[in-house]
Amino acid sequence: MSTPIQTSEPSPVLIFQTLNAFQQTAALKAAIELDLFTAIGEGISTTDKLAARCQASERGIRILCDYLTVLGFLAKADFHYSLTPDAAMFLDGRSPACLASAVKFLTAPSMVEAFKDLTAVVRHGGTMLGGDGSMEPENPVWIEFARSMAPLMRMPSELIADLLRAESGERWKVLDIAAGHGLFGIAIARRNPNAQIVAVDWPSVLEVAKENAQAAGLDG
Amino acid sequence: MSTPIQTSEPSPVLIFQTLNAFQQTAALKAAIELDLFTAIGEGISTTDKLAARCQASERGIRILCDYLTVLGFLAKADFHYSLTPDAAMFLDGRSPACLASAVKFLTAPSMVEAFKDLTAVVRHGGTMLGGDGSMEPENPVWIEFARSMAPLMRMPSELIADLLRAESGERWKVLDIAAGHGLFGIAIARRNPNAQIVAVDWPSVLEVAKENAQAAGLDG
Repeated sequence: MSTPIQTSEPSPVLIFQTLNAFQQTAALKAAIELDLFTAIGEGISTTDKLAARCQASERGIRILCDYLTVLGFLAKADFHYSLTPDAAMFLDGRSPACLASAVKFLTAPSMVEAFKDLTAVVRHGGTMLGGDGSMEPENPVWIEFARSMAPLMRMPSELIADLLRAESGERWKVLDIAAGHGLFGIAIARRNPNAQIVAVDWPSVLEVAKENAQAAGLDG
Repeated sequence: MSTPIQTSEPSPVLIFQTLNAFQQTAALKAAIELDLFTAIGEGISTTDKLAARCQASERGIRILCDYLTVLGFLAKADFHYSLTPDAAMFLDGRSPACLASAVKFLTAPSMVEAFKDLTAVVRHGGTMLGGDGSMEPENPVWIEFARSMAPLMRMPSELIADLLRAESGERWKVLDIAAGHGLFGIAIARRNPNAQIVAVDWPSVLEVAKENAQAAGLDG
């Protein structure tokens, strides 16, 4: 699906793949929303049982699973579906590295709306959403960002805190600009009680960082 | 862009490519609507001149051209853009094989709408558009199909008529079911004045076939 056929002659394959690419996004989004990858990860492998588990029609599940197999997220053998390594690591809700929640931000209505008439955007030279679009102060899409995209940064934030030797306990002042979910500062604070973290973002977004800090056992 | 990085370890690359794939469709659609590929095919290669020609902002054109370069439709060297072989053959409006009009059918509002909530579609086991969706009798999307997709079938229809030796002039009766643009029958009729073509489709769609037949110098 994602590798165009290599030929020496011009081919329309890439053009049709691209004109239909929005269907790929829709299929992956649907599978995540139906929690299909978690179900398959648990070993449910046939369309009848997946339909029951995902509260969907068997016909719909079969077509979706076959398309996801073509896209490279599932493998199929003898009418049984299984997760590819990518899906097992990053889409199965039981995986600590699961980043399926990213779909909520990346396909949020305001994000999709911004691409609805890209011709007008290119003519205008900027967003047609009004004002500065997603750059408007207090645009709620960044609250969704802070919530949905946090799982992607959990592991990097831990690795960075280790790399910085945060556990040395020095009296650090850490400035986290556009803190969002706040995970980078939180990972340092968890290792270093002498670190003072200053997280900067819009007030509504900082509420998410505060929630994450409290969940990590830190006080504001 | 379209070739995921090959690693032995699981990677989130394909997941992010797929969640953002709708942007690929939007970019190619915008470029076709702006007639960007024809402009570049004519030798206009810099963002300032392309912006003037396409009546767009230079910033918008630059970002769009760079993204199309990543996708594989343009090449860029020293701030000059050129068409890849695929784009020159199939997207430049001056090419006899141009199929850019396919964007009108493949991204028609009703086609895109059908994928808007694929989760509900999979739960339901069929379209949520109401009735039979695009299979409803007289659904106007098939008029758009007949108009927009005709260029894709022009060359195949000519090749098939040759293959059938239509020029032999035998008294054929040709039944073209779901005739759409009517090109397959028209290619035979142009070679064989003794062929009687019966094109079957919804009345509104047959109007497009009649237009094409008249443009080919044939009477109804």
